[in-house]
Amino acid sequence: MTDWSTAGAGAVAEAVAAGRVSARTVTEATLARIAALDPAVNAFTDVTAARARARAEAVDAGRVRGPLAGVPVAVKNLIDVAGLPTRAGARINRERPPATRDATLVERLEAAGAILVGALNMGEYAYDFTGENVHDGDSRNPHDPAHMSGGSSGGSGAAVAAGLVPLALGSDTNGSIRVPSAFCGCFGLKPTYGRLSRAGSFPFVGSLDHLGPMARSVGDLARAYDAMQGPDPADPVATDRAPEPVLPVLDSGIADLRIAVAGGYFAGGGDPEAFAAVARVADALGASRTVEIPEARRARAAAYLITAAEGAALHLDRLRARAADFDPAVRDRLIAGAMIPAPHVERAQRFRRWYRAAVLDLLGEVDVILAPATPCRAPRRGQTHFVIDGVELPVRANIGLFTQPISFIGLPVVAVPVRLDDGLPLGVQVIAAPWREEAALRVARHLERVGAVAAPVAMPSVAQG
Amino acid sequence: MTDWSTAGAGAVAEAVAAGRVSARTVTEATLARIAALDPAVNAFTDVTAARARARAEAVDAGRVRGPLAGVPVAVKNLIDVAGLPTRAGARINRERPPATRDATLVERLEAAGAILVGALNMGEYAYDFTGENVHDGDSRNPHDPAHMSGGSSGGSGAAVAAGLVPLALGSDTNGSIRVPSAFCGCFGLKPTYGRLSRAGSFPFVGSLDHLGPMARSVGDLARAYDAMQGPDPADPVATDRAPEPVLPVLDSGIADLRIAVAGGYFAGGGDPEAFAAVARVADALGASRTVEIPEARRARAAAYLITAAEGAALHLDRLRARAADFDPAVRDRLIAGAMIPAPHVERAQRFRRWYRAAVLDLLGEVDVILAPATPCRAPRRGQTHFVIDGVELPVRANIGLFTQPISFIGLPVVAVPVRLDDGLPLGVQVIAAPWREEAALRVARHLERVGAVAAPVAMPSVAQG
Repeated sequence: MTDWSTAGAGAVAEAVAAGRVSARTVTEATLARIAALDPAVNAFTDVTAARARARAEAVDAGRVRGPLAGVPVAVKNLIDVAGLPTRAGARINRERPPATRDATLVERLEAAGAILVGALNMGEYAYDFTGENVHDGDSRNPHDPAHMSGGSSGGSGAAVAAGLVPLALGSDTNGSIRVPSAFCGCFGLKPTYGRLSRAGSFPFVGSLDHLGPMARSVGDLARAYDAMQGPDPADPVATDRAPEPVLPVLDSGIADLRIAVAGGYFAGGGDPEAFAAVARVADALGASRTVEIPEARRARAAAYLITAAEGAALHLDRLRARAADFDPAVRDRLIAGAMIPAPHVERAQRFRRWYRAAVLDLLGEVDVILAPATPCRAPRRGQTHFVIDGVELPVRANIGLFTQPISFIGLPVVAVPVRLDDGLPLGVQVIAAPWREEAALRVARHLERVGAVAAPVAMPSVAQG
Repeated sequence: MTDWSTAGAGAVAEAVAAGRVSARTVTEATLARIAALDPAVNAFTDVTAARARARAEAVDAGRVRGPLAGVPVAVKNLIDVAGLPTRAGARINRERPPATRDATLVERLEAAGAILVGALNMGEYAYDFTGENVHDGDSRNPHDPAHMSGGSSGGSGAAVAAGLVPLALGSDTNGSIRVPSAFCGCFGLKPTYGRLSRAGSFPFVGSLDHLGPMARSVGDLARAYDAMQGPDPADPVATDRAPEPVLPVLDSGIADLRIAVAGGYFAGGGDPEAFAAVARVADALGASRTVEIPEARRARAAAYLITAAEGAALHLDRLRARAADFDPAVRDRLIAGAMIPAPHVERAQRFRRWYRAAVLDLLGEVDVILAPATPCRAPRRGQTHFVIDGVELPVRANIGLFTQPISFIGLPVVAVPVRLDDGLPLGVQVIAAPWREEAALRVARHLERVGAVAAPVAMPSVAQG
């Protein structure tokens, strides 16, 4: 008998549509699995069981149909869920009144038949790459709970990898979808900047924030992505483009794509395993060409600077009034950000325009670029420093050194999970030109088909309810 | 016999078109007057006599016609003139190679028949309201050379008011057209942000910089403005709007316009004469309503902050490499700007969006708002402090306290000159909604017709060449 608690989104939706299983059965199995296993991974901060059951009833009654019929989903807790305070990982925010309506992406997922089962843990105000949180406890890596889930969408990565839900939403400002996807071993899509609506989400850095899906298969990722695409007047930076569905072309192969490996900055400054993971993926794709993303180190520094300064601007009043209520690890970085001289940020923005043009030129020569997602596997929880290339560095600030130069200019990326051995997984970024999510997803799908990447459920099954 | 050296632009153009005078005669009279009087006002840094004579010949030969046929003009020396280094008031910049082509606005003026006679003095890098310059000497007030011309378009104000040219171009970031117009007693138009091309001008603060004309009559101002309007692909922030000529409607009266006086912030913090000048203008217009521009004090502070930080960003490399070559009064403010924390600037930008919306709401209720141009008459040259409302303040930083909240959101303003007595002139800002230059110009024209404002030549005539 199928274990519906760990089935994929596509499998659930097809079975529900065919009447082979009820949404209610899937929902109950999911709630039971969350109840049994979430204490070990701490992915959920809220379980919306009553809402989920009501929604399952609506699906089973035929009142809602769609490509995600009956599919359980959960969302990072900076995304509005009607009736819950949008805590954004912060103690301060949970005192706010509950959201009065769902975020646009939640509405769209449910309109496609999905069933929201809860909100997910995250680093405070999304300013971490670790998944640690002093208020809600750390998200844990389902492969080894002594290790970090990665962050800031740590609950999203942990919930998907642990098989608690087949789909989750995260946000990615500097790597917050790609890092937990890599550490937890699942797929994550950070779409083109502006592609998916951010309406109804708590911001971090306006010009860098993205929302996106995480899943255990490329097909599920594409299915969720397709359900969420399209303009949204409620989000002023959302694209006007009509949806460009990927699922129909997902299996069309990669013969037309020029694929290269990022050299230079992206070929050093990490553990050997990080580059071995990229080599594994490149081999599977027959990608022998190397390209250099120009000035990636400066791009990372500029992203870092803009993030610190804009994040500090966003939180300045809270820092003044309630510094003691912040997670100290977040607060101290925000206070440092509050003191960055403005001309540095202005120059970082000016560099950004140059860098964007230079990378777009490069993306005229190749369609897809491969790069490591992180410089290492998931550190242990509580670990504050690691050694990269012989240099001891703070963990929290440096896990994103390969993700930051990419999100800095809003390129779409699929993070694909690689298992080199029995140890923790690693991730590889599959990067494409703006609006070419389909290219990155087709490459990810090809890798999945040839067995180079995979995201099996990390934790054992439990009896279904 | 007409003194062509001090004739207005309209009078010259009509006489040249009708064959009553040659462009050559006007040009020679102008060059002679500059040679005779400029030593007293120090408005010109370059006189382009050969170019002017060649151009006059072209006009007289009928090769160039247009609404400015034969009209002498001069431009602030941050505007490119082919063959001259664009010094922007700075020692450092004059070492640059000469401009290889004219700025767009110079091209357009000459295409309309105008004759460029030179480049005009200004405060270093446009960061002054005084017209003082340690490298080129101060521009002087033609009404009393012991007093400031105002700045940073000090040479422009002085040249027009002294009758050296009927038309000049200035730039206005925080008040640099309106302040010298007020101090020197001429008309100045700071158009809507984006209305006139800035291509080929040396920048100061990208989101605040405007170029615009100065003249001794509203008709001349409108004539120059009309000749310069229209899209310019070379300036990415220039409007796409087609030209909206004002001259044809200039005398259509003001019966349709709701005119109010700015109260609150704009009704205090200045010498009584500043408000008396506004009252004089309001009386002439029958404007009895008062409106409050919301949060104008914060708007001024925000404009100040953004200017200091962006100006510092622009000049950071020069400050590092060649601090000793700056005007000390400018350098020290730029260095201070380099240390402003980025979140302050970010918040100032956020406030700006709010403020813009609030003021646009107000401009749905009234068409034109009157406010003082400066808090006082022109201080003495070298004066570093003045007392406003019993508080001693630095002159350089505070002359623009009434102009800054208006340019901060790019509203069009005509500065009109008021003589309350035999002392130095004062100025009043006639402010309109974005793209409604015509409303402000029609009000200015009405004031001129009823004799409430006027800009007579400030210095005695000399014999013509």
